[in-house]
Amino acid sequence: MSRPTYDDICQAQALLSQDLLRTPLIHSPQLSSLSGADVWLKCDCFAEIGSFKARGALAGVRQLTPEQIGQGLICASTGNHGAAIAWAAQKVKAQCTVVAPVGTPEIKRNNMLNAGARLIIEGTDWGDSCRIARAMAAAEGLLYLEDGEDPWIMAGAGTVGLEIVQDLPAVQAMLVPVGGGNLIAGCAIAAKGGSRNPVEIIGIQSEAAPGVVESVRQKRIVHSPTTTFAGGIATTGPVPMAFGVIQQLVDDMLLVSEQELLQSIGHLVRIHGILVEGAGAAGLAALLRYAPRFAGQTVALILSGRNLDVESLRIAIG
Amino acid sequence: MSRPTYDDICQAQALLSQDLLRTPLIHSPQLSSLSGADVWLKCDCFAEIGSFKARGALAGVRQLTPEQIGQGLICASTGNHGAAIAWAAQKVKAQCTVVAPVGTPEIKRNNMLNAGARLIIEGTDWGDSCRIARAMAAAEGLLYLEDGEDPWIMAGAGTVGLEIVQDLPAVQAMLVPVGGGNLIAGCAIAAKGGSRNPVEIIGIQSEAAPGVVESVRQKRIVHSPTTTFAGGIATTGPVPMAFGVIQQLVDDMLLVSEQELLQSIGHLVRIHGILVEGAGAAGLAALLRYAPRFAGQTVALILSGRNLDVESLRIAIG
Repeated sequence: MSRPTYDDICQAQALLSQDLLRTPLIHSPQLSSLSGADVWLKCDCFAEIGSFKARGALAGVRQLTPEQIGQGLICASTGNHGAAIAWAAQKVKAQCTVVAPVGTPEIKRNNMLNAGARLIIEGTDWGDSCRIARAMAAAEGLLYLEDGEDPWIMAGAGTVGLEIVQDLPAVQAMLVPVGGGNLIAGCAIAAKGGSRNPVEIIGIQSEAAPGVVESVRQKRIVHSPTTTFAGGIATTGPVPMAFGVIQQLVDDMLLVSEQELLQSIGHLVRIHGILVEGAGAAGLAALLRYAPRFAGQTVALILSGRNLDVESLRIAIG
Repeated sequence: MSRPTYDDICQAQALLSQDLLRTPLIHSPQLSSLSGADVWLKCDCFAEIGSFKARGALAGVRQLTPEQIGQGLICASTGNHGAAIAWAAQKVKAQCTVVAPVGTPEIKRNNMLNAGARLIIEGTDWGDSCRIARAMAAAEGLLYLEDGEDPWIMAGAGTVGLEIVQDLPAVQAMLVPVGGGNLIAGCAIAAKGGSRNPVEIIGIQSEAAPGVVESVRQKRIVHSPTTTFAGGIATTGPVPMAFGVIQQLVDDMLLVSEQELLQSIGHLVRIHGILVEGAGAAGLAALLRYAPRFAGQTVALILSGRNLDVESLRIAIG
C-alpha cells in the first residue's frame, strides 16, 4: 500500500492492543488556566520504551514475511525510532542494526542497546545517518525500514491520534511535534477520518530545525540545517510520503524557540511531575506562544517521548 | 468485611479496569547490571493522577451507598491519597474535603485542588491531619475514609501487586515503599495468593521515618518522628489493619537513607527518563543498598508516584 487509510490505522490499533498498553490522556486544569484553552496531555512519554515510536515499529515489523525477518533489519534514528525498531524486532526474533548520528545522547544510546540493537554511531544528522543505513542495507543485504516511508509505521504512529479522538471526542485541535513527519501524518489521517467534528492538526517544529515548516511554505521538500537540542524533531526536512500527507491534511505549522521548549519541559515537571524530552514539549511551547489562537478550544498536546538528557533537564528546571 | 482477601483484590481489579489504565512493568537492563538482580519497574508513577492511590480510592468510593455519597467525604493525606479520593469522589459526584499537613508541596496541593477537593492545610504530619479530619467528620457529618483502614482501599492498592504477578510470574521479590502500610498489605495479600512461586514481600522506609520498621521490630504499633522529604512515606507509624497484615505476610522491612532516595531518583531520571517522588525511589534505593541480598533474583520495584517537588529533583540530578 502507499499511504495508510483511516481503516489501516484502526487495523493497526487492533494489532497493537495485544502488545502495547494504551497511554493516558490527562486533563490539565493548570495548563488550561495558563493558556486559556482546555488542555489535555496525551502521554506517550509513558510508553514502555519511552516514546510513541513503538507503535509504528511494531505495526511495521508485524507485516514482515519470514524471509524479510530472516534478512535482518536496519534503520537510522536519533534514538527513539531505533529503540522502537530494535524492541519490535525482538518480538519477531529479527536481528536489528541502528545507525544513529554522532551526538545521540546517552539515554537514547542505552535504550537502543538495551533493546538489543547493533548500534553504529555515524552521520552528522538523521538524514546523513539514513544515507549510511541505506548503503549498509545494500552492502549487507539487510531490510531498510525508514520512518515516514513505511505505511505501516505511519499507521502505527497514527494510533496516537486515533486514541485521542476516541478518548476526547470534543477535541478541536491537536498539537503534534514534527520531525520526519510520520507522527503528524498518521495523526492527521486518523483525526480527519475518525472524528465527527473538525479537528485542526497543527505541526510544531523548533526554529533550530525548521525543515518541514520551510518545505510546506515552499510547497516542495527543502532541507534546513538543524541545531536543536530536541533530538526527536532534529530532522533537516520531511520524508516524502509523510510530506504528501502533511500538504494535504495538516492545517498549519508553527515554530517555537529552543528556550520555549526548555521552559515547557520545566512547566510539565513542576505542574504534573511529567518528564518529557524536547520534542515532547513542542506542543505546550506552541500553545503558550500562540495562546490567543487556541483560546477557548479543546486542545490535545502529544507528549511524544521522555528520553531527555539530564543536562537539558537541569537547564529546564534551573 | 475486615481485611481484604485475594478474591477481593481480583474483584477490585475487575472493577477498576473500566476507569483506570493498566500501568507498564518495564524491564531495566541497566539497573540489572548495576544491582546484580533482574530488575523490573512497576510504573504507577505513570498513573493519570500521578500515583497508585487512584486504585484504592476508586475501589473504596465505588462501594459507598447513595446515602454515604450524599454525606460528603473527608480524608487526611500528604497529597497523593487526597488527590485520589477527590478524583474518585468526582466520578460518583460526591463532595470531598482533604486535610493535608503543613509543608505539603505545591505539586501535591495543586493535584488535590484540581481534583476538586476542598483543601485544608492543617496538622504537623499525616497522623496529626488524620486526627483533625476525624474531628471534622464528626462535627460536619462527613464520611471519613482512612487510608489503610478501609478494606476496599487496601484491595484497590493490592491490584498493583496482582498486576505484577500476572505480568511477571517469575517474580521472586517485590520491593514496596511503606507509609501507612496499605500498599504493601494489599500487595502482600495479592502476591501470596496469586503467585504459584513464593514471592518475598519487602517493605522499605526511610531512616527519617521508620515508624513501621520500629513497629514490626517491637511487635506493636509505635510511632517514630518523621523528617523525611519523601511525603508518600512520611508517616509516624502503621494504621492498625495494615499492620496486622504486615506482621503476618511481609517478609522483611529495610531502611534506606534520605541520600539514597535522592540518588535513586537521579538514577531513574538519567537511565530511564522516569521521574518519581521520594517514596517512588524507595525500592531502588533498597535494592542498591542491599544488593547482595537480591543478587540473581527477579525483583519488581513499585514506583508508587511521580509528584516530586522541583527543589528535590534539582538536588537529585545535581
